[in-house]
Amino acid sequence: MSPTILKLGGSVITEKDRAETLDGEALDAAADAIAENFQFSAGNQNAPRSGDIADALKRGDVSGLVVVHGGGSFGHHHASEAGVTTTDGSADAGDAIAIHGAMKTLNQFVLSRLHDRGVPALPVHPLSAGSRDADGGLDLPMNQTATMLNEGFVPVLHGDVIATEGEGVTVLSGDEIVTTAAEHLSADRVGLCSTVPGVLDTEDEVIPEITAFDDAADALGGSDADADVTGGMAAKVRELLDLGAPASVFGPDDIGAFLAGENPGTTIRSDD
Amino acid sequence: MSPTILKLGGSVITEKDRAETLDGEALDAAADAIAENFQFSAGNQNAPRSGDIADALKRGDVSGLVVVHGGGSFGHHHASEAGVTTTDGSADAGDAIAIHGAMKTLNQFVLSRLHDRGVPALPVHPLSAGSRDADGGLDLPMNQTATMLNEGFVPVLHGDVIATEGEGVTVLSGDEIVTTAAEHLSADRVGLCSTVPGVLDTEDEVIPEITAFDDAADALGGSDADADVTGGMAAKVRELLDLGAPASVFGPDDIGAFLAGENPGTTIRSDD
Repeated sequence: MSPTILKLGGSVITEKDRAETLDGEALDAAADAIAENFQFSAGNQNAPRSGDIADALKRGDVSGLVVVHGGGSFGHHHASEAGVTTTDGSADAGDAIAIHGAMKTLNQFVLSRLHDRGVPALPVHPLSAGSRDADGGLDLPMNQTATMLNEGFVPVLHGDVIATEGEGVTVLSGDEIVTTAAEHLSADRVGLCSTVPGVLDTEDEVIPEITAFDDAADALGGSDADADVTGGMAAKVRELLDLGAPASVFGPDDIGAFLAGENPGTTIRSDD
Repeated sequence: MSPTILKLGGSVITEKDRAETLDGEALDAAADAIAENFQFSAGNQNAPRSGDIADALKRGDVSGLVVVHGGGSFGHHHASEAGVTTTDGSADAGDAIAIHGAMKTLNQFVLSRLHDRGVPALPVHPLSAGSRDADGGLDLPMNQTATMLNEGFVPVLHGDVIATEGEGVTVLSGDEIVTTAAEHLSADRVGLCSTVPGVLDTEDEVIPEITAFDDAADALGGSDADADVTGGMAAKVRELLDLGAPASVFGPDDIGAFLAGENPGTTIRSDD
């Protein structure tokens, strides 16, 4: 078995139009779905032991659930005030702390709701773990996350700022964390929960499966221009086709179905 | 130039006998000494640019200050309640969060006092970054810390819990962070501020320099048995002799002198 990665979009768990406002009901529902549908191996006594977690990952000996959440009205508000994006940074520690602190507050809400339901969640703050080089290349070590999984914990990562050569700190989006984690952890399945029920066609119907960009090019406008800081749907579909694991794009009502092994919303998998 | 590492002992900045109690005056004095004596290059416009931070470290092209603080009455209280040590872990997320949360609270105090004085401090939480394998071997990636330094920030690390294969989480002491960071960052100088003014001889006088364990064997009792969870002075001296950088052991009044380039207290450097 390999890990499952579940991304909770920032717009799902926060009120995106009001600064630092949680959507408590939506977060409760997401936490319920996680607690009810995922089998946790408390203490993970049966986890295979190995001297090298990287080898265990390659053998598919690490399973479990990784949660990644976006920034919503917590991160985006402060990032936009400070003018910090994924490429334009700030060398001001105050800017970095404002964005990072807001994201930690949101992360604390997510952790609390999971703990309330017996989910053994532990935080992984990307600012503490990763960095970018001068070309924007991301270095996000993942052995801590893999070791947490192997010990039966549920690592919870989030969009954040990270130190970036020549820029101070820049934004690291939840989506970039998902693609990086999926690769490093050899993820089995990736689920992206956003406010839409899937990738929609020109009639606003959910496209059940996308195996090549052309399948959805009309609906996606044939362009991968970014719609917002975390990337528009077209860019997202291109990234997910390159992922090496099947990805599902679905709405909040389908978190449980995804974790139970179904393929709700749109499944994106490359034929290559 | 290579980085300087300053460790603030937990017993310096907290009231060690009262759970989760800050020694605010001592922390203020430490923050004053840091702000007054260390030259920060805000934004670090002159930092050498390189595509690979690891290479920059090797060339000695990364300078700046790394602060590491211990747990004092924040971490130790919860670790001792949960029975978690550097080798005996807990698979309970509640235990992990209790210790980690207390350490984050202390870290937040340290960051705030530094920010109040214009020091561009950023947190690095070890739980988010590192892990141990089944043999207790520590994997603590440091590129995030190096990139922060190169961008003119002051990374602030702390004793914490970290995921440990077969143990859930175990304690990572501030001292272990110091030795690991000194190696990874090719540190120039290491300063350890504790409640004693240095390594004391049998007459309770500070030994100015130790270049071999035998120099201090009598005073240290000739044994390296650990006195507490973070290791006794004898074990500390042995570790510091292996460090590859000169280390100073001094009391709270000497932080400024150390940062100004002096060698207060006891200087420990191997002749090898």
